[in-house]
Amino acid sequence: MSEEVYIIGHMNPDTDSICSAIAYAEFKKQAGFSGNYIAARIGELNPETAYVLNRFGFREPVLLEDGAGKKIILVDHNEESQSIEGYSEAEIVEVIDHHKINFRCSKPIFYHNEPLGSTATILGEMFLSRTERIDKGVAGILLSAILSDTVVFKSVTTTDRDIEVANKMAEIAGIDDVKSFGIEVKKAKSSLKGLSAKDVIFSDFKDFDFNGRKVGIGQIEVVDSREAVDRRMEFIDELEKIRLEGDYDLVVLMVTNIMEEGSDLMVAGLTERIEKAFKAKVENNRVYLKDVMSRKKQVVPQLEGVF
Amino acid sequence: MSEEVYIIGHMNPDTDSICSAIAYAEFKKQAGFSGNYIAARIGELNPETAYVLNRFGFREPVLLEDGAGKKIILVDHNEESQSIEGYSEAEIVEVIDHHKINFRCSKPIFYHNEPLGSTATILGEMFLSRTERIDKGVAGILLSAILSDTVVFKSVTTTDRDIEVANKMAEIAGIDDVKSFGIEVKKAKSSLKGLSAKDVIFSDFKDFDFNGRKVGIGQIEVVDSREAVDRRMEFIDELEKIRLEGDYDLVVLMVTNIMEEGSDLMVAGLTERIEKAFKAKVENNRVYLKDVMSRKKQVVPQLEGVF
Repeated sequence: MSEEVYIIGHMNPDTDSICSAIAYAEFKKQAGFSGNYIAARIGELNPETAYVLNRFGFREPVLLEDGAGKKIILVDHNEESQSIEGYSEAEIVEVIDHHKINFRCSKPIFYHNEPLGSTATILGEMFLSRTERIDKGVAGILLSAILSDTVVFKSVTTTDRDIEVANKMAEIAGIDDVKSFGIEVKKAKSSLKGLSAKDVIFSDFKDFDFNGRKVGIGQIEVVDSREAVDRRMEFIDELEKIRLEGDYDLVVLMVTNIMEEGSDLMVAGLTERIEKAFKAKVENNRVYLKDVMSRKKQVVPQLEGVF
Repeated sequence: MSEEVYIIGHMNPDTDSICSAIAYAEFKKQAGFSGNYIAARIGELNPETAYVLNRFGFREPVLLEDGAGKKIILVDHNEESQSIEGYSEAEIVEVIDHHKINFRCSKPIFYHNEPLGSTATILGEMFLSRTERIDKGVAGILLSAILSDTVVFKSVTTTDRDIEVANKMAEIAGIDDVKSFGIEVKKAKSSLKGLSAKDVIFSDFKDFDFNGRKVGIGQIEVVDSREAVDRRMEFIDELEKIRLEGDYDLVVLMVTNIMEEGSDLMVAGLTERIEKAFKAKVENNRVYLKDVMSRKKQVVPQLEGVF
């Protein structure tokens, strides 16, 4: 038995990380590489990824907790800060990625990075150019990963090659309406059912220091705002609780609707700063911002400017 | 006119660096990339590369002295220490390489590295899979680069893919006997004609500190030892002069015959250390070491061990 090579995506794995690891292990087998390639994960699956794997009949990859002393292939990331425990003592034998690079190795390895919307696009092209056939399930998870990472082709990172590969994978997987399927995938992640208001707010929450003031901003992505709208009072109460307990000056939850391409902001604390930053009226601790989808680019700099 | 993108190999450019830069500029044109891609060099050509370009009708690439503020594609290297002045202020837009990696960038770029014998092998495969045809001259310089970097397939870095691509390029370039052609290329570099003994010794000379003793080791690669043998006394006189002027304890010239796979060592200074390190008798300041070709792996550690 040859030595195991683990294929892993980044921590807090998303659909692109998990599906790319599974697909690359499959590619290695189909393309005739000798070796025991094992798709792995370094964290828990999110509901979107769980939905995708279930939809196409894949089990979740094994959990790898420490990379020290192991042969590792990195997909969908390259930097130590986003990777497995024991990264610096692992033997990294390959990298396939679509991010910025911060990487060192002491001997030549296969390293392939492209400025595309997803890692799955690179893998789809590798299957198309180098294998005889693509399994329907593999095509399905690659399609899902492209749709997830490009936010159904709406992200500014989307390229023609992402769309082209997604369409080819859809054909193989037998999926007729690519966009509807993409929304279905995104819906799986955005369901708030069974989650407490606190869980929702903290699912992706970041702290900021704006000129000595403490500001916290959470964000969720939804394809349908109804659930969030129905629970608005519950969220605002929870934001207020977080503000008091955490001694924040301002706490915000962005409910970003990827279909409408806008965000509902629910706020507790210095609401007038929100009004000033976005030149919009906050009513009942809530304001809708059309065309605002990115916390990093469309909310943080604007808020920082008014503190 | 679109902005210039300069394609450069490493400093002290070799045949793989120069020919890969020229071929990649050609590939960009043929594969339909928009942009003004310019093959460049960051140092003087060696005689082997000059021979190869002349043989296939190419002019030497333009000299680029500073990369600051320019868009740059790196071929055959990636690390700042081996690259152009102004590297950190350049915008590196792509990398194609076959070395170890020490690289950072702040946004995703095309980065392709493979553990192959030459960068030219990667480029040959890109032409074969993605262009309609390959120009005879381009095939000729890619073949030359593969043969140069793999020392006519004798280097331990040679892979099946290097040999396969070399054979395909040879067919396109109309070269029947690949190995004879490889020796012809290597001969061009190894000719000592017109070079003084000092030029020969310093063409690739490195200083070492072995336990407080100053040792200098030069190396030349030849395909035929006769020229060097005929000039042995002249080389030894020059080594002695260098030893006195530079206050060395030991000065060595390795004349490595890549056909015989062995090295003639000419020495001045502490010759008994050479005898001890290699368990061989130095006669008239000269000793032949069979199977020794690598200064880095087969001479430096052995000498260091006896100091």
